[in-house]
Amino acid sequence: MSYRRLVGFGEAMLRLTVRDGGALETATSLDCSVGGAELNTCVAAARAGMPATWVSALPDDPLARLVRRHVRANGVDAEILTVEQARLGLYFLEMAPPPRPLRITYDRKGSAFAMLDPDRIEWRTLLGPDACLVLTGITPPLGGGPRKSVEVALAAAREVAAVVALDVNYRSALWSRDEASRWLNKALPQVDVLSVGPEDLSAIGLEGTDPLAEALRRFELRAAMTTSKQRVDDAMELEVRVVTPDGEHRAQARAGVVDPIGAGDALFGTFLAHLPGGDVQAAVELGLSAAVTCIGLFGDALVDDPWDTSESRGVVR
Amino acid sequence: MSYRRLVGFGEAMLRLTVRDGGALETATSLDCSVGGAELNTCVAAARAGMPATWVSALPDDPLARLVRRHVRANGVDAEILTVEQARLGLYFLEMAPPPRPLRITYDRKGSAFAMLDPDRIEWRTLLGPDACLVLTGITPPLGGGPRKSVEVALAAAREVAAVVALDVNYRSALWSRDEASRWLNKALPQVDVLSVGPEDLSAIGLEGTDPLAEALRRFELRAAMTTSKQRVDDAMELEVRVVTPDGEHRAQARAGVVDPIGAGDALFGTFLAHLPGGDVQAAVELGLSAAVTCIGLFGDALVDDPWDTSESRGVVR
Amino acid sequence: MSYRRLVGFGEAMLRLTVRDGGALETATSLDCSVGGAELNTCVAAARAGMPATWVSALPDDPLARLVRRHVRANGVDAEILTVEQARLGLYFLEMAPPPRPLRITYDRKGSAFAMLDPDRIEWRTLLGPDACLVLTGITPPLGGGPRKSVEVALAAAREVAAVVALDVNYRSALWSRDEASRWLNKALPQVDVLSVGPEDLSAIGLEGTDPLAEALRRFELRAAMTTSKQRVDDAMELEVRVVTPDGEHRAQARAGVVDPIGAGDALFGTFLAHLPGGDVQAAVELGLSAAVTCIGLFGDALVDDPWDTSESRGVVR
Amino acid sequence: MSYRRLVGFGEAMLRLTVRDGGALETATSLDCSVGGAELNTCVAAARAGMPATWVSALPDDPLARLVRRHVRANGVDAEILTVEQARLGLYFLEMAPPPRPLRITYDRKGSAFAMLDPDRIEWRTLLGPDACLVLTGITPPLGGGPRKSVEVALAAAREVAAVVALDVNYRSALWSRDEASRWLNKALPQVDVLSVGPEDLSAIGLEGTDPLAEALRRFELRAAMTTSKQRVDDAMELEVRVVTPDGEHRAQARAGVVDPIGAGDALFGTFLAHLPGGDVQAAVELGLSAAVTCIGLFGDALVDDPWDTSESRGVVR
Amino acid sequence: MSYRRLVGFGEAMLRLTVRDGGALETATSLDCSVGGAELNTCVAAARAGMPATWVSALPDDPLARLVRRHVRANGVDAEILTVEQARLGLYFLEMAPPPRPLRITYDRKGSAFAMLDPDRIEWRTLLGPDACLVLTGITPPLGGGPRKSVEVALAAAREVAAVVALDVNYRSALWSRDEASRWLNKALPQVDVLSVGPEDLSAIGLEGTDPLAEALRRFELRAAMTTSKQRVDDAMELEVRVVTPDGEHRAQARAGVVDPIGAGDALFGTFLAHLPGGDVQAAVELGLSAAVTCIGLFGDALVDDPWDTSESRGVVR
Amino acid sequence: MSYRRLVGFGEAMLRLTVRDGGALETATSLDCSVGGAELNTCVAAARAGMPATWVSALPDDPLARLVRRHVRANGVDAEILTVEQARLGLYFLEMAPPPRPLRITYDRKGSAFAMLDPDRIEWRTLLGPDACLVLTGITPPLGGGPRKSVEVALAAAREVAAVVALDVNYRSALWSRDEASRWLNKALPQVDVLSVGPEDLSAIGLEGTDPLAEALRRFELRAAMTTSKQRVDDAMELEVRVVTPDGEHRAQARAGVVDPIGAGDALFGTFLAHLPGGDVQAAVELGLSAAVTCIGLFGDALVDDPWDTSESRGVVR
Repeated sequence: MSYRRLVGFGEAMLRLTVRDGGALETATSLDCSVGGAELNTCVAAARAGMPATWVSALPDDPLARLVRRHVRANGVDAEILTVEQARLGLYFLEMAPPPRPLRITYDRKGSAFAMLDPDRIEWRTLLGPDACLVLTGITPPLGGGPRKSVEVALAAAREVAAVVALDVNYRSALWSRDEASRWLNKALPQVDVLSVGPEDLSAIGLEGTDPLAEALRRFELRAAMTTSKQRVDDAMELEVRVVTPDGEHRAQARAGVVDPIGAGDALFGTFLAHLPGGDVQAAVELGLSAAVTCIGLFGDALVDDPWDTSESRGVVR
Repeated sequence: MSYRRLVGFGEAMLRLTVRDGGALETATSLDCSVGGAELNTCVAAARAGMPATWVSALPDDPLARLVRRHVRANGVDAEILTVEQARLGLYFLEMAPPPRPLRITYDRKGSAFAMLDPDRIEWRTLLGPDACLVLTGITPPLGGGPRKSVEVALAAAREVAAVVALDVNYRSALWSRDEASRWLNKALPQVDVLSVGPEDLSAIGLEGTDPLAEALRRFELRAAMTTSKQRVDDAMELEVRVVTPDGEHRAQARAGVVDPIGAGDALFGTFLAHLPGGDVQAAVELGLSAAVTCIGLFGDALVDDPWDTSESRGVVR
Repeated sequence: MSYRRLVGFGEAMLRLTVRDGGALETATSLDCSVGGAELNTCVAAARAGMPATWVSALPDDPLARLVRRHVRANGVDAEILTVEQARLGLYFLEMAPPPRPLRITYDRKGSAFAMLDPDRIEWRTLLGPDACLVLTGITPPLGGGPRKSVEVALAAAREVAAVVALDVNYRSALWSRDEASRWLNKALPQVDVLSVGPEDLSAIGLEGTDPLAEALRRFELRAAMTTSKQRVDDAMELEVRVVTPDGEHRAQARAGVVDPIGAGDALFGTFLAHLPGGDVQAAVELGLSAAVTCIGLFGDALVDDPWDTSESRGVVR
Repeated sequence: MSYRRLVGFGEAMLRLTVRDGGALETATSLDCSVGGAELNTCVAAARAGMPATWVSALPDDPLARLVRRHVRANGVDAEILTVEQARLGLYFLEMAPPPRPLRITYDRKGSAFAMLDPDRIEWRTLLGPDACLVLTGITPPLGGGPRKSVEVALAAAREVAAVVALDVNYRSALWSRDEASRWLNKALPQVDVLSVGPEDLSAIGLEGTDPLAEALRRFELRAAMTTSKQRVDDAMELEVRVVTPDGEHRAQARAGVVDPIGAGDALFGTFLAHLPGGDVQAAVELGLSAAVTCIGLFGDALVDDPWDTSESRGVVR
Repeated sequence: MSYRRLVGFGEAMLRLTVRDGGALETATSLDCSVGGAELNTCVAAARAGMPATWVSALPDDPLARLVRRHVRANGVDAEILTVEQARLGLYFLEMAPPPRPLRITYDRKGSAFAMLDPDRIEWRTLLGPDACLVLTGITPPLGGGPRKSVEVALAAAREVAAVVALDVNYRSALWSRDEASRWLNKALPQVDVLSVGPEDLSAIGLEGTDPLAEALRRFELRAAMTTSKQRVDDAMELEVRVVTPDGEHRAQARAGVVDPIGAGDALFGTFLAHLPGGDVQAAVELGLSAAVTCIGLFGDALVDDPWDTSESRGVVR
Repeated sequence: MSYRRLVGFGEAMLRLTVRDGGALETATSLDCSVGGAELNTCVAAARAGMPATWVSALPDDPLARLVRRHVRANGVDAEILTVEQARLGLYFLEMAPPPRPLRITYDRKGSAFAMLDPDRIEWRTLLGPDACLVLTGITPPLGGGPRKSVEVALAAAREVAAVVALDVNYRSALWSRDEASRWLNKALPQVDVLSVGPEDLSAIGLEGTDPLAEALRRFELRAAMTTSKQRVDDAMELEVRVVTPDGEHRAQARAGVVDPIGAGDALFGTFLAHLPGGDVQAAVELGLSAAVTCIGLFGDALVDDPWDTSESRGVVR
């Protein structure tokens, strides 16, 4: 896989966070940042040195400017449709140590992204044989425009010989397991690199002793990754497994938790940035180092360097 | 006018504020409070000792609980419809000293209130001859349900002999001047107490040398109030004028500005709370004292007592 | 036990908190909230759907208004005596991870509650056969008025056939073990539901292999509960045991600690709210779920819903 | 007047402040600092290079340590009695732009200072012919111990030939005008330098065309100062007038207001620090420069240098 | 003047701010932003739609990354030398309402910029006939490297026919009036657009009735601008005057002050962005509107849009 | 060892901290405190009741005043040279839970301390037979002046029979292992009490089975201490070992981590304060209790009392 740049497509939201110990019900102040799986993935990749372009839609208001600042500050290029009379999606996050749940309240209906006109994105221009298109399973259920855009993008990627990476990211609040399974099974044959959560494998209809290897085989993937996370008090234990036609790679680590959101995106983006280098094990370990750093950082995005200390990050093969 | 309680109907929103000196574009934290003209009016009236009930609709999520806490904390009763699959409206506020504008970005589409089912509110039970129904011109353009609710409420008020108070609050972003004028002219004959901004008088089609007196006469009002505000650096100069069939009352004051939002509601709620007492001039002055206090307070709502020091508040006849 | 509402009696204080990592000695800012065992218990019960009235005394100043807002916001009714020339009790709390102690500095002398006139509370009106009177062992040593009020309340409860629930909450700073034991042994025969810490059992003079069961038998209680807590780094392990004439119930859980204060009150209030339902085990588990939620929340009071996720809260029988 | 050090006697309190725009009723956080007129005066004098000792009483708890840190940090020496079982006095301050009042809620009953044993202070050791004793009219009404201490201190000052400076600081909440007048008229013959507010002159029974000059004459003062303050929106206009047997001195200035509390103390302390230098006009102007600086600083105490820019501070003769 | 992009050269510093009312001496928290006159100018120009490149030097540490984020977020391109073993310059800012001074404590010695190697910047590549080089008088005294860089840049600008804009910005702490005058008089003949403070005119040796017109004539400038500022309590009055060979333009405005730093840079950058449009008066007014917006914003940089409301900003010809 | 006061010599820096979860790269606010190993040691000793004097150099600016306030507030005396045209050293600290590293970015070049003139310190006056000179291995590599000062101080200590305590504190960023080893081996024969990290022992050239005992013997020390620290998620495990000619002492504890910086200094200062008491084991345990308290406190300095609860601090022999 010899792509030299990422092209991510997806929605970004304003994230409004109640810090540890508070409840939204009694909040008098909310921390304000930007989140979105595909954008987070682009941010991580750009930090790892891989040029990244984020394709999306935004309204025409000060909140859109806030998102654009975030994108630029993180060194990600943007191709953004402006949708008039639309809003920016939001999500409210209440952070708490377990077992009090880290509760997310989405408020993304009527967003500029959900209302985007798929005909306004010129995928053939955006993609190319040097590009890796980054998608997630969050986008198709967000609306007709987003779903059609993903499908057009997949077709365009095939035409221009771009690589396709997809993170399943199944969200039961957005679509049913059946609907997701149907859509994903149609899309996956066009995917090259798959990231899938342990519990999402069955959503795709993959079961058996090694569903990840089964996915690799069935969809003729070049790489399939799964990450399992387990919260132990204030720490998170992560284990990554990647299977490729050439074999299997694993790494694991344990991280003190500041903010677990976005860790999977940091991992995927960093992994994708290093994958063309050819050393899959290194890509896995650097990805895990990024995930661990992201867990120790407030916010969705990877805004600190993980590279110089990957060993001291406690990544273990 | 011998009502003994207020019944306000309108939408509440989560207010997300960038404090003085910041811009939404670079915000990392937002202050979080609750606003809504009719609710603000109820809060002021309740503080002045007049029982108040707020009729509204909310979604079923933690943000709705935040609004309910605010309502209860301020001693206002609530009759709230829960609307599933809906959201709470928001507004973003960037506070700044002039001439940098105090910018409001509304995000209220798809709110539970806009989507409320008017048939679910039992106005005949809520109102009565001891009640004063409080409405504003913000509600009719928010959606078919809200508009029909206002109309049903007006009809019910007439049937049960409730007093009706209306604050015009014309918002050009919500409806055109023509549409507003048409609706208001149909509604105003059912109104008893009117509050109207100096620049909104023409929206109702009232002009001439004394459009306020003209409104009193044409719509057979029992009281008509207008408040003019002028910002002078960090201070706000207010002048209130009330005309009744019995004569005219005036008061003016100057207030250091912390947060000008909600001052008109504090004035109207306090004025309405005192109006049944019979001393219109006192009601005007106490209302102005509440407005001045509200301008010196962060947030929409009147959360501090203005009563004990009305004179030292600088209210001048 | 078929009570349908709680009536709590006790003092509330302003809580001034130095967040984790600070010391009062160098504080430049203090978080400000409201605490008080009986009020906390009422708040938890009200959240669980059981109407609750808090009987207390407050001064006549802005701090009293702050307490009243807190009570109302949490949906608790209030019967409050105003005591002129008195103050609101305070407590300063320095939060720290162990072994640095979570230090409390009380400043409650001369409080309105300590100075209340017991003759001004009409217990017969407040209580009834549908009520459960909630008391703690904190109140009697606070002053002559509070102690007499508790005794009058106990007598009134008997007369009107109200249920009585008491949380021992022995505080060595307030009275000696002897004095506490003497008072409690006189009061306990009038108690129906007892909550007592493992180390407080001996304060009541209960010893032997199963002092809790001994309490049940000796005082003819309908339920006796004890909760043991153990701090393990940033987590708290809780174990609840309830004995009734019909048998024994247990539940345990482990919670990441934000703020351990108030967890026992959340447990007791939630337990009492569910006890009339008849399923003691469910009441214990819901109570523990509330405690675990409270430990993950800043402040004394249970200001977030624990219900929807009681299983995911890690409550184990 | 050739004193070379100040010895101030008075109470310090923890000041808990709601910043501009908030109300105590809805506060979730309070700023925490230390205030007390005589201590503030010592702080200003020490900053001006005059050694200062603060004589007072404190409880034995972390809040007392907070006060001691403040005293030491400002370079003031301390002679502090520890009073067991006592508390630190507090005051709550709600800051607001006028006409919303800057409201102070005192909570100082039962303080260590009010309960101090006057026999434990060795005034003869503390004072001497090189000392200027600094008192205010706040102390006598705080309790029998404080009042007796002031009287003993005055007697000791006479014996050891110390200078005595007194700031009237009449507080109607602490004692009646009659009681104050009686006490002050007995004490003033022992005073050398008097600071008195324009409206306090009548409290001492001084009236007529020039009551300040009358005070100088009647009590054989060496200097009498009065400062008038007028708030104009966000600014404060100050005018100082000092009369001595040798003539009269005036200065005036206008200051943007951050926090007006303590300005008079900063002025008095700075004036007293420079008075022995012999140039009364310079002492007045430097004092006013300190006051103006203090008004532009958060907190009671003068914690920034005013000296280098006295001219640019807008002080005008 | 038909340039289509700006190229600014100068130092950026971390700005550490004590907000209004605090003193550095007692600070426990500092706001953290980025400042630098030439960078501020580029930021304003980029916001006005004129592409801008900032040429500078930074160390290799997390603070340099913070500066780079700021540059990117504001849409400014960067050509940055990395200087090993160097530091980022800082400045501490204590904000206060007058007459307490807004005090700046610089800490910029040994900065990467001061130590930059002038031979590493390829001015001929960076500049061109479509470019306007933006310099200030702050740079030459910062070190030998910076001064030589400015001189080389001026020479390169002439060679490639780039326009040169210079803001005198005389700082007495950096060099003497004589040294500044000598250097500026050598440089000014190569300058096309000059911005100069009213009091800096004499630093260049320009005096007489109209020194600005004299500058225009003597140095054959295409435009010369001067801005006078006057603080009146919480407001700032600004008056801009521009002279060109074709005539004279003026505009004035009054702004509520949040943070006066950077206003002149916002004005200059916005003016330069609009100057090629040919309507000098419009450029002046838009510049003033930007300045007024910047005064109402925290931080050096213009991070909010001034365009849509230029009239309501109170700009007056 | 019968010293009765400490005399510490070393540099203090302004510490600018990004709290847990942030990155310097995105910081908008930094916590501001004071750090410096020798000063921290003096602070701990003074809190333990041992008079301490801190000898150092500072610039002449508001930051120096901030440091002086910190020193005074903690009850430490100061002998401070003022160095004109110099700056205060800084360090930036990014706090994070492991494995994200707690990253320190030093910015101390050109500091007043590094530039101090060694001839201006009168060591013979400062020291005496009742004094214990406290040094660390941080000082010699900071500059020629500091190194010479340390050497002169060591010589003076010998002359006046002062005790010498040294904490090796080897910092690879300041000097090479070789240079450190050479300097330390020359200095150590003049040292009486040594504190050395487990990994620093080899820096001094001490190896073998018990390098600490070897140090004691080779340099004829009176006490040698080593502390090992191990981070386990949010806790720190500490183990202290002290060897003296009379035997060996150990203690260990586990502490929840707020801020690990300064714990070793708190331990050393507290240990030194108690050492003259003669009970080495008690000194070790009290030192460890101080370290554990410091780990639970924000900032370098021990600003809370550890004494009253040393047992509950979990110190185990």
